[in-house]
Amino acid sequence: MRFDEAYSGNVFIGSHPNFEESEAVIYGMPMDWTVSYRPGSRFGPARIREVSIGLEEYSPYLDRELKDIRYFDAGDIPLPFGNASRSLELIEQFVKKVLDAGKFPLGLGGEHLVSWPVMKAVYEYYPDLAVIHMDAHTDLREHYEGEPLSHATPIRKVADLIGPTNVFSFGIRSGMKEEFEWAKENGMYIAKFEVLEPLRSVLPKLAGRPVYVTIDIDVLDPAHAPGTGTVDAGGITSKELLSAIHEIARSDVHVVGADLVEVAPIYDHSEQTANTASKLVREMLLGWVAK
Amino acid sequence: MRFDEAYSGNVFIGSHPNFEESEAVIYGMPMDWTVSYRPGSRFGPARIREVSIGLEEYSPYLDRELKDIRYFDAGDIPLPFGNASRSLELIEQFVKKVLDAGKFPLGLGGEHLVSWPVMKAVYEYYPDLAVIHMDAHTDLREHYEGEPLSHATPIRKVADLIGPTNVFSFGIRSGMKEEFEWAKENGMYIAKFEVLEPLRSVLPKLAGRPVYVTIDIDVLDPAHAPGTGTVDAGGITSKELLSAIHEIARSDVHVVGADLVEVAPIYDHSEQTANTASKLVREMLLGWVAK
Amino acid sequence: MRFDEAYSGNVFIGSHPNFEESEAVIYGMPMDWTVSYRPGSRFGPARIREVSIGLEEYSPYLDRELKDIRYFDAGDIPLPFGNASRSLELIEQFVKKVLDAGKFPLGLGGEHLVSWPVMKAVYEYYPDLAVIHMDAHTDLREHYEGEPLSHATPIRKVADLIGPTNVFSFGIRSGMKEEFEWAKENGMYIAKFEVLEPLRSVLPKLAGRPVYVTIDIDVLDPAHAPGTGTVDAGGITSKELLSAIHEIARSDVHVVGADLVEVAPIYDHSEQTANTASKLVREMLLGWVAK
Amino acid sequence: MRFDEAYSGNVFIGSHPNFEESEAVIYGMPMDWTVSYRPGSRFGPARIREVSIGLEEYSPYLDRELKDIRYFDAGDIPLPFGNASRSLELIEQFVKKVLDAGKFPLGLGGEHLVSWPVMKAVYEYYPDLAVIHMDAHTDLREHYEGEPLSHATPIRKVADLIGPTNVFSFGIRSGMKEEFEWAKENGMYIAKFEVLEPLRSVLPKLAGRPVYVTIDIDVLDPAHAPGTGTVDAGGITSKELLSAIHEIARSDVHVVGADLVEVAPIYDHSEQTANTASKLVREMLLGWVAK
Amino acid sequence: MRFDEAYSGNVFIGSHPNFEESEAVIYGMPMDWTVSYRPGSRFGPARIREVSIGLEEYSPYLDRELKDIRYFDAGDIPLPFGNASRSLELIEQFVKKVLDAGKFPLGLGGEHLVSWPVMKAVYEYYPDLAVIHMDAHTDLREHYEGEPLSHATPIRKVADLIGPTNVFSFGIRSGMKEEFEWAKENGMYIAKFEVLEPLRSVLPKLAGRPVYVTIDIDVLDPAHAPGTGTVDAGGITSKELLSAIHEIARSDVHVVGADLVEVAPIYDHSEQTANTASKLVREMLLGWVAK
Amino acid sequence: MRFDEAYSGNVFIGSHPNFEESEAVIYGMPMDWTVSYRPGSRFGPARIREVSIGLEEYSPYLDRELKDIRYFDAGDIPLPFGNASRSLELIEQFVKKVLDAGKFPLGLGGEHLVSWPVMKAVYEYYPDLAVIHMDAHTDLREHYEGEPLSHATPIRKVADLIGPTNVFSFGIRSGMKEEFEWAKENGMYIAKFEVLEPLRSVLPKLAGRPVYVTIDIDVLDPAHAPGTGTVDAGGITSKELLSAIHEIARSDVHVVGADLVEVAPIYDHSEQTANTASKLVREMLLGWVAK
Repeated sequence: MRFDEAYSGNVFIGSHPNFEESEAVIYGMPMDWTVSYRPGSRFGPARIREVSIGLEEYSPYLDRELKDIRYFDAGDIPLPFGNASRSLELIEQFVKKVLDAGKFPLGLGGEHLVSWPVMKAVYEYYPDLAVIHMDAHTDLREHYEGEPLSHATPIRKVADLIGPTNVFSFGIRSGMKEEFEWAKENGMYIAKFEVLEPLRSVLPKLAGRPVYVTIDIDVLDPAHAPGTGTVDAGGITSKELLSAIHEIARSDVHVVGADLVEVAPIYDHSEQTANTASKLVREMLLGWVAK
Repeated sequence: MRFDEAYSGNVFIGSHPNFEESEAVIYGMPMDWTVSYRPGSRFGPARIREVSIGLEEYSPYLDRELKDIRYFDAGDIPLPFGNASRSLELIEQFVKKVLDAGKFPLGLGGEHLVSWPVMKAVYEYYPDLAVIHMDAHTDLREHYEGEPLSHATPIRKVADLIGPTNVFSFGIRSGMKEEFEWAKENGMYIAKFEVLEPLRSVLPKLAGRPVYVTIDIDVLDPAHAPGTGTVDAGGITSKELLSAIHEIARSDVHVVGADLVEVAPIYDHSEQTANTASKLVREMLLGWVAK
Repeated sequence: MRFDEAYSGNVFIGSHPNFEESEAVIYGMPMDWTVSYRPGSRFGPARIREVSIGLEEYSPYLDRELKDIRYFDAGDIPLPFGNASRSLELIEQFVKKVLDAGKFPLGLGGEHLVSWPVMKAVYEYYPDLAVIHMDAHTDLREHYEGEPLSHATPIRKVADLIGPTNVFSFGIRSGMKEEFEWAKENGMYIAKFEVLEPLRSVLPKLAGRPVYVTIDIDVLDPAHAPGTGTVDAGGITSKELLSAIHEIARSDVHVVGADLVEVAPIYDHSEQTANTASKLVREMLLGWVAK
Repeated sequence: MRFDEAYSGNVFIGSHPNFEESEAVIYGMPMDWTVSYRPGSRFGPARIREVSIGLEEYSPYLDRELKDIRYFDAGDIPLPFGNASRSLELIEQFVKKVLDAGKFPLGLGGEHLVSWPVMKAVYEYYPDLAVIHMDAHTDLREHYEGEPLSHATPIRKVADLIGPTNVFSFGIRSGMKEEFEWAKENGMYIAKFEVLEPLRSVLPKLAGRPVYVTIDIDVLDPAHAPGTGTVDAGGITSKELLSAIHEIARSDVHVVGADLVEVAPIYDHSEQTANTASKLVREMLLGWVAK
Repeated sequence: MRFDEAYSGNVFIGSHPNFEESEAVIYGMPMDWTVSYRPGSRFGPARIREVSIGLEEYSPYLDRELKDIRYFDAGDIPLPFGNASRSLELIEQFVKKVLDAGKFPLGLGGEHLVSWPVMKAVYEYYPDLAVIHMDAHTDLREHYEGEPLSHATPIRKVADLIGPTNVFSFGIRSGMKEEFEWAKENGMYIAKFEVLEPLRSVLPKLAGRPVYVTIDIDVLDPAHAPGTGTVDAGGITSKELLSAIHEIARSDVHVVGADLVEVAPIYDHSEQTANTASKLVREMLLGWVAK
Repeated sequence: MRFDEAYSGNVFIGSHPNFEESEAVIYGMPMDWTVSYRPGSRFGPARIREVSIGLEEYSPYLDRELKDIRYFDAGDIPLPFGNASRSLELIEQFVKKVLDAGKFPLGLGGEHLVSWPVMKAVYEYYPDLAVIHMDAHTDLREHYEGEPLSHATPIRKVADLIGPTNVFSFGIRSGMKEEFEWAKENGMYIAKFEVLEPLRSVLPKLAGRPVYVTIDIDVLDPAHAPGTGTVDAGGITSKELLSAIHEIARSDVHVVGADLVEVAPIYDHSEQTANTASKLVREMLLGWVAK
């Protein structure tokens, strides 16, 4: 007697009803408590699902359909409001279960700090892991006003864990001087301002390696993603970001997990940001999981 | 592996997962194609569910908790866009199933025309049916610019079906002169502008009878429900509407079904209308079903 | 080949196409250049017309229909941006033409200063004129930061012209101490906070006299009129303001002109303020012109 | 006594008051009842007119002024809410009158289905007609959930009528797999993702032929047109769309009619979409009618 | 060379530039990290100051002017994002300084949890302290999903500290059944739904006692305060809340500190909530400090 | 006892507290009374400051930090509402003081007319002055509907003052035919539609000369700056505008003053326009003052 959930936008369009039979798992990480500017990304995952009903299930970019793969939408991980460390633990536990079951984790944020426990869990499975990071911000601080668990620190944490030379950042246009210097001194790759061209030069070097891709929606220009916490002019277009996803799909890297974070619906009356995010998720599924 | 649906706002808070074991059924009727002014109520039911996570499950008005009753949230009935007559058929079929199973139908609109097939179905079960109608508008037209299936006609249709003397309208502040005259000539009760006082005088007369209650959210003043198609100044407060629900709960009428329609989220940036609707639904469940 | 203008919201609903044959004239005064806080009321008149298509033409309050009277909608008076004195001259000239033709002027603002040239013109025709003023603000300053032509001065100007004892303010909840003192010392009537009760006591004293009524939409509480320049908590409801209009309609005063000012659509996403204004205009037409 | 209509945004800026003396006719088709996602384009034509007062009448792109041509703004065709088939008939009748009078029809939508009766009428006059279609979506479905009269079908309908090889789509980035395959199998031209370059290669082949141009505003990226029903990332810029209009203007095709559809103002708080649409209309008038 | 700060809305209108010479201190507590529903109140204090420039400095309710008292605006206390316990410590330290200096603390929130350290500090100075609490919510949980530092717990904490019989809640319309029961069992006063009448009966009992007043803006109906995290229908009007402030001002209690919390500007496009809050602050200053 | 002002967004981030010790002075010119379309830019300067707290103080474009230079934020110049000529006098007086003190004036608007008195003052100091003007609009009218002090005239005024051959406009896409012709006839440089390429060809010709740069935020496409009075499709991206600022920084011109005008926050719910403006201001400070 229950009508199709996808119809009401309760799950991402085209989701498979069964966890076990799925190749990938979509899950939300509705946490935004450490952000220093505008909160609200806790509602990102739910809104991305809701607007996904406006999507076609076919990608004319990749000539593939969502029905070609099976993915389960696990909903949002229940996280304790205002408790960052416990939230990160719960995320890590969940992702380990996904990985234990041999499935591709595709996470939706939430603030960028949620990527940290995911990458930690993925690294345990793939010691040769490389991270591709698309973002407006370096996120390379050691701590933010004394706090190591902050939305400004996740990339630094993963760089410390897997080695800075295994982290590749693209589209960066904001950060402290010290963060850029740290990256330089430690051999971490940062492509300032641009994504597509530098990505084309980096991908061949990563051929054959397991790669985790973390995308902060604010790598897009505010024109293309007004619904995010920290809008920062001078970003790339949604066309370029789609091309970057397709470039990775066509490369020889082995994408083993991914996330899309920092969609904060309240700042975007037109809901273009959530709609764009849902299209990006479709292309990530079709390009990276179905491969 | 699926997290609690209620957490993500996928179903109305506190819903029972099983249709058969439930006493009541919540269902959405996402139709807005015959409205003459501002469309958008097709998204009302989904948004009401989504914001219901902000509700407490206890009512200090009725001193009852949602866990005291069992209700199933069936999601939105899939309706064919732009096809009013087929949509109404589908709604009627669904409601008949709910009634056949002996459950209380609690519908969410959508435009007010969706109440018509519901009332038709309920009338088949309860030939002695009376209708309590709270609304800013008479909705008593025979047709709207030649079209009998219109958001301006549902109360006329039910009055023609069950007899005008069995229909009781409250809070009415808008309509054509002919509609008011038709009501007067045919013995239909209309309380202009006010709800609570006239309701107190009408309820005793309906004691023991089966009653269907249809509430158009625009019976509220635009200050209390900006998120609706046709805002009309001079309405009642949300406090008064809550009291009206409680007045019915305390009366001797036998509520056999109900709906709340015309929530159009896009016109209300603060989402107060959807939040108010979700609270009204809670009180309707606790006051009318649990009785 | 031109479709009915009213359909597209180009003129106030039900307007008569011909100036000469009309009893009343609606006209916009799209000026907001002297406001000290939030501008935008220049777009008020156009938006009030646009949303008037959502109105019924019948008033269940007055049991009258718009077709019972004839009113012409003259559109917006073209005013030179940023030039207050010239704008006021143009308004005064226009209103004189309306009065010369023996018609009832019903103006839409625009900032409150636009009422000043109108009242000046009306006073020439009616030396026994009294003014009924509903507003959150006293508007009794002699000048605002040195500027006598300011949105804060129109009531003082008219009080100086027709004598303070002929001006009656209602609903006032904001002003400088000096303004309240000036009113007291000069015998001008001010009803603080409330409108309906004091109006009932004042109206009999004005029986038989020509009265101009100027309504600043911010006499309503912000809940009922968020779309205005200066929102000020503690105001009356739209229900009370409707009652005040009806109270005047049923009294023995002779309303000879009126205006409704300070609707600023950009601050009201739901457009409830413009919709409420259009309903107020309907009741003013039916209650004051048709009498 | 009526002030210039254009001043209040009642008609498109610079419109000629007389139908007979005009070379082109602007008309609105305020229908949105078959859309499957977000309704609201019924208010598109009115808002485009309203904001046209912000336009300069001179085009520095084409070095032409609106006064160089004469166009009549017929307002919005009154359409019966929720009745698609009757609405399409009324549109067709109107456009035939425009064509009978030898004038250029320039329609404003409304959902894309409104283009279907227009193109049908134009085809009767020009049996050699070709259609240039700019859109994010294929709109090539035979029916949508069983319904042949749907916003998803107009291009398929015209392709069936005039032959698929006479239809040229540009900027397409969304559709079902079957739609793309149908186009391919039937020789219909589809330029995926891009507009300007493919248009430059197609236009010479259409030299001398009568062409109808239908533009869905969602061919623009959501960044440039957030105010539409279905926002879809990866679109073109407004600069590119302007260039496409100019490219057609400079080509040897004979534009015999055009439309711009799917502007839904409620989703765009800044009103940039309606403003952009009004500029596009100016360029269409100056580039295609004046030629 | 620096222009008057108040002009730009940098400090609350009429603030005194000097801490030492002031009788009261306004300070912001921009924390929202433990909220379970919609965040954003961290921006409340700044927006309340910004819109205060729209206020008159005279209160016609109290016949007093802001210049009659001296208050210093200390700005927002810098709080570490996402770290609740450290934030509360910093607030407590600051308020102690204010109290040590013999000044009246008037705090602006921020989520309601910020009131807890303030009340703790005030209690140290006034062992006979009573608390008047106006709110939609009980806030009486011991913990929220295991977390004792939560926006749902501050009133319980203060009740545990100063004794439940010294806490008086008004306007409560939401909470868990257990919270209402706990209050009843422990002799804590809760006035459900209403504020003014119960306040009038409670105030005489508190005559002569030091009282801290904490106001959650959501005690207002969503119509009057849409800009808050958790909107809950059935609340009081801004007129009633103003009257409650004046009732306390006229009573014999000794107000020794106060706060106004939970203004979240992003949910209120019209900014009526922040404007209302700034008016409430003016009346609190004039009624409670100036006494 | 006052917390860091920059924390609350009261001054532009990183401002120096002392006028005398600063090299540059930021000041707001909150005037919008002569605009012909949408007002609201009076609130631009305050909002730009407020959101500047979201900025990093380091520019990865210029590899410089805000602490490398000293700039004082003077707040907004108090201007008399609705009095354009007096407002312009006050601006001119202020800027003269800044220049007398040997500091770089960096003004924030407000409507574009505010640039006129600034350029007049700067020209007195630099008789060899050239003006670089980036804008969607020519602003070359002699008067607007008879009014020489209009937002449509500032560039004409400065061209008349310093000679048309010393004025260089970029990105222009809107204006009257007569304006373009006047420019052509008088040897004034206008780059239509584009900014970066033409700027690269003009800058060498200005080597060594003192240059004032005035940027109207609407030179950006509406996608990148929806929050402005007159949105006009076909503009440049924020990336291009940033590059233009850097191009000037790297050139041999001597920037002696600058402004950024026409940010109108109310039209941009996401606040991307104000955020972008604050980033532009940072780059202007780092690129032009620090040089």
